[in-house]
Amino acid sequence: MTDVLLYDCTLRDGAQMEGISLSVEDKIKITRKLDEIGVHYIEGGWPGSNPKDVEFFERARSLRLDKAKLAAFGSTRRAGVTPAEDANLKALLDAETPVVTLVGKASQRQVRDVLRIDNEENLAMIRDSVAFMKKEGREVVFDAEHFFDGFLDNPDYALACARVAADAGADCITLCDTNGGRTTEQIVEAVRAVQAKVSCDLGIHVHNDADLAVANTLAAVSAGVRYVQGCVNGYGERCGNANLTSIIANLKLKQGIDCVSDDELSRLTEASLYISEVANLTPNPHAPYVGHSAFAHKGGLHVDATLKLSDAYQHVPPEAVGNNRRVLVSELAGQRNISAKLEEAGVDLALSRDETRALLETVKLLESRGYTYEGAEASFELLARRSRAEYRRPFELVDFMVIVRKHTDPDRDLEGGEMLAEAAVKVRVDGQVKHTVAEGDGPVNALDAAVRKALVEFYESLAEVRLVDYKVRIVDSSTGTGATVRVMIESTDGEREWTTVGCSPNIIEASWLALADSLEYWLVRRLEAAA
Amino acid sequence: MTDVLLYDCTLRDGAQMEGISLSVEDKIKITRKLDEIGVHYIEGGWPGSNPKDVEFFERARSLRLDKAKLAAFGSTRRAGVTPAEDANLKALLDAETPVVTLVGKASQRQVRDVLRIDNEENLAMIRDSVAFMKKEGREVVFDAEHFFDGFLDNPDYALACARVAADAGADCITLCDTNGGRTTEQIVEAVRAVQAKVSCDLGIHVHNDADLAVANTLAAVSAGVRYVQGCVNGYGERCGNANLTSIIANLKLKQGIDCVSDDELSRLTEASLYISEVANLTPNPHAPYVGHSAFAHKGGLHVDATLKLSDAYQHVPPEAVGNNRRVLVSELAGQRNISAKLEEAGVDLALSRDETRALLETVKLLESRGYTYEGAEASFELLARRSRAEYRRPFELVDFMVIVRKHTDPDRDLEGGEMLAEAAVKVRVDGQVKHTVAEGDGPVNALDAAVRKALVEFYESLAEVRLVDYKVRIVDSSTGTGATVRVMIESTDGEREWTTVGCSPNIIEASWLALADSLEYWLVRRLEAAA
Repeated sequence: MTDVLLYDCTLRDGAQMEGISLSVEDKIKITRKLDEIGVHYIEGGWPGSNPKDVEFFERARSLRLDKAKLAAFGSTRRAGVTPAEDANLKALLDAETPVVTLVGKASQRQVRDVLRIDNEENLAMIRDSVAFMKKEGREVVFDAEHFFDGFLDNPDYALACARVAADAGADCITLCDTNGGRTTEQIVEAVRAVQAKVSCDLGIHVHNDADLAVANTLAAVSAGVRYVQGCVNGYGERCGNANLTSIIANLKLKQGIDCVSDDELSRLTEASLYISEVANLTPNPHAPYVGHSAFAHKGGLHVDATLKLSDAYQHVPPEAVGNNRRVLVSELAGQRNISAKLEEAGVDLALSRDETRALLETVKLLESRGYTYEGAEASFELLARRSRAEYRRPFELVDFMVIVRKHTDPDRDLEGGEMLAEAAVKVRVDGQVKHTVAEGDGPVNALDAAVRKALVEFYESLAEVRLVDYKVRIVDSSTGTGATVRVMIESTDGEREWTTVGCSPNIIEASWLALADSLEYWLVRRLEAAA
Repeated sequence: MTDVLLYDCTLRDGAQMEGISLSVEDKIKITRKLDEIGVHYIEGGWPGSNPKDVEFFERARSLRLDKAKLAAFGSTRRAGVTPAEDANLKALLDAETPVVTLVGKASQRQVRDVLRIDNEENLAMIRDSVAFMKKEGREVVFDAEHFFDGFLDNPDYALACARVAADAGADCITLCDTNGGRTTEQIVEAVRAVQAKVSCDLGIHVHNDADLAVANTLAAVSAGVRYVQGCVNGYGERCGNANLTSIIANLKLKQGIDCVSDDELSRLTEASLYISEVANLTPNPHAPYVGHSAFAHKGGLHVDATLKLSDAYQHVPPEAVGNNRRVLVSELAGQRNISAKLEEAGVDLALSRDETRALLETVKLLESRGYTYEGAEASFELLARRSRAEYRRPFELVDFMVIVRKHTDPDRDLEGGEMLAEAAVKVRVDGQVKHTVAEGDGPVNALDAAVRKALVEFYESLAEVRLVDYKVRIVDSSTGTGATVRVMIESTDGEREWTTVGCSPNIIEASWLALADSLEYWLVRRLEAAA
């Protein structure tokens, strides 16, 4: 049971997701990262359909991978031609990968209604294409598209498709739940039926349209399937492919299958975040194993229990997958939360008992004004730092002014009006005052631009910091537009991310407070590291 | 097998999610919506731990629900007191719900290391509390916390906890995978062991830490469990609770279990979006069944196949869950949606075919710019009204200017700075222009005050309208503070409430657009009623 092979489809099937677009450079970066976490096969693309993928395989030839083998993906030959005449198969050979993955239909209904060819020709297309690639010395994976749906409609034909591929010499036949709608029972039943007819290795490839992709993959492995396909972070068309990140952790930690080493597993969180960064997609904070919230504890009862019994509310040690436990500071915070929290942030402040108590009081007071430090650890850390007499702020705000103006030409439509947003700020660093002004898309953007313009003169490296998310919430909505507003800002310097919070009835002030915390936090840490 | 009962935990366990914060009003709205989709039980909160939840149950008493029963949640009595002395149990009775859900530990290890009481006392706490609530005439659900982990460590003790609850008269014993780490096989094995010892109805409550929550829930149902707990959209602590949205669709469409009617199922997508809107959380576009991308087809091959065979790449008909296929949004279906929406709003506009088509185009254009009309019906109605040539706006905005200024006395603390927000507006009514200025707690409040000052001179009754909620969301967060902002404003005149929307990269402009819609909507309806 230790002999499972991980086959990643992120670069091909994952890239079909709405909102994703990977450059060749992005794909190279992701390939390297996948190799680091111990994936055995990396499907690089479809050279027959996409010139970018042709370029990827050209560049990938000089990549030195530790463990992973590259696979080029393409369909079986067209109807009515020989493999040697088929442009798509030629493109696959030209990719010069050790592995070629061929996709063919395994559903009689799809063969009839979509391909509109007869059953025998489809079987011949599978047989000829697999045999051709084997003769060319490739390791061949046959992806049996729509296998599970086909098995429900016409099991004999679906099995016949698998059998011709096996007879032609395929190294692996991957059974695909292309539409992602099959239940776990249906998957297991069909896998068993194939095992009774075919002796070559099987693979599993499922989509998540019924929210069952990870479970269906694990069930197939329990039934004896050896090749496991999936995409990092569950990327993929519609509802995504099976989430390979979750699958790797489950195989290793729940099923005891050593598909990756302990060291490779411990890089899983970092790899998941890195790949979402490269793909320019916001990471899912609630993702199993690797999400920012995956090991976060909120309620006082849970925090208290976690301190007594470390696994009271966690199913695996977060370090195993390179993640961290997080204690959320919420209304229910006790002094123990505060210490646990600081320790977790790696901040060695050694607050006295009185300082801790004072900090707790401050937190409670600010929370009653609408602040929340849950998920705004950077602002919390600053509060703790400021609770010590010797703390010095790296900059101080003296003044700011923001003007937003809409001007409409009375002869034109309402929507046609021009908008202007401008901010002026005065900040002080080491007794020196800077007064700057900037425009922006909106008032907060203008404020951000103006304050950076001022601070960058003192702290050049601040240019590395950028905002990645900006969230606004009304804390007490009963007073309408006069209500308290909570702004949360997420920032990054390309290496790590942090979140800060600001509250005020004035959204501009709330934004300013969160913005100022974000910059102060980064500067304090940077100055400390330099010291 | 048709007899499954849906038990929703969104308002209690779901609200434990990082980033979620529900007001009492939000909870009432979600309760109504859950009732619409046919959920059988709604867990409203934990009155013993939270004054907001006490208020919720007070207000919920006057709610008239079609199908759902309300449940109040709380723990079994404390060690060493009688049920009658226990403040938490008293709070549960005071909630006056037909159903009470009691949580108690079913893991011997947790009883020893977290509760730090002996095994017998824990069993007595379960027994006494269940019996007490039964004597008070409540339907009692016993949530056996950490049951599955406990069953692995000490199966006899876990089973004993279930048994005392059953013997004390519990109507249902819910087996909880509190830490979300159990595999499907482990869930099924433990369910079977309980069935051998206990004859009362069982429930299942699992978390998604291993990405298996939906599958584990379905497996428990297949094994004979009757009560299914979960949260809408998979909200919940850490990686979330089992996604009730996916579970409902799977039970009905995959397992053939009639837990909701066809009509209730067809509201699933709308309910999922509505609840994420109320919770101010971005909907997951890739969510199974209800996501915006769940039935979206990207690749050319897939689109082509879909034209030949409508279910070539979809596992269920999207209409069954109220979703749409996105490649082939037929003009007719879209136009029908528009008429249905207007009818639903009680607006008899009798748009022509061309006007409907033009309106559909406008909606599509605005949606591509970040607008959403889910939950902003008033703005949608205004769009429809404006699509008719004879429509006259009750007022027009000519200009506005907002100034926000923070001034700090250099000798005082940063937080001591004074804030000023001032807005000047120019509006035109019947050719007459009014120029007014006002101050406010923040820029939007000032803008609101200034525009009212102007309009109230023309429409005295406008003073009745006030804003009750103001929500802000970043539509595309990748550009930080320069991103598009969506503002939703909820208003009331004391009789009814309506919601409007505005989008812009400038938060002031977005707020203005939503504010203007709110006032225009009310005026138009009022003028029409007076006519």
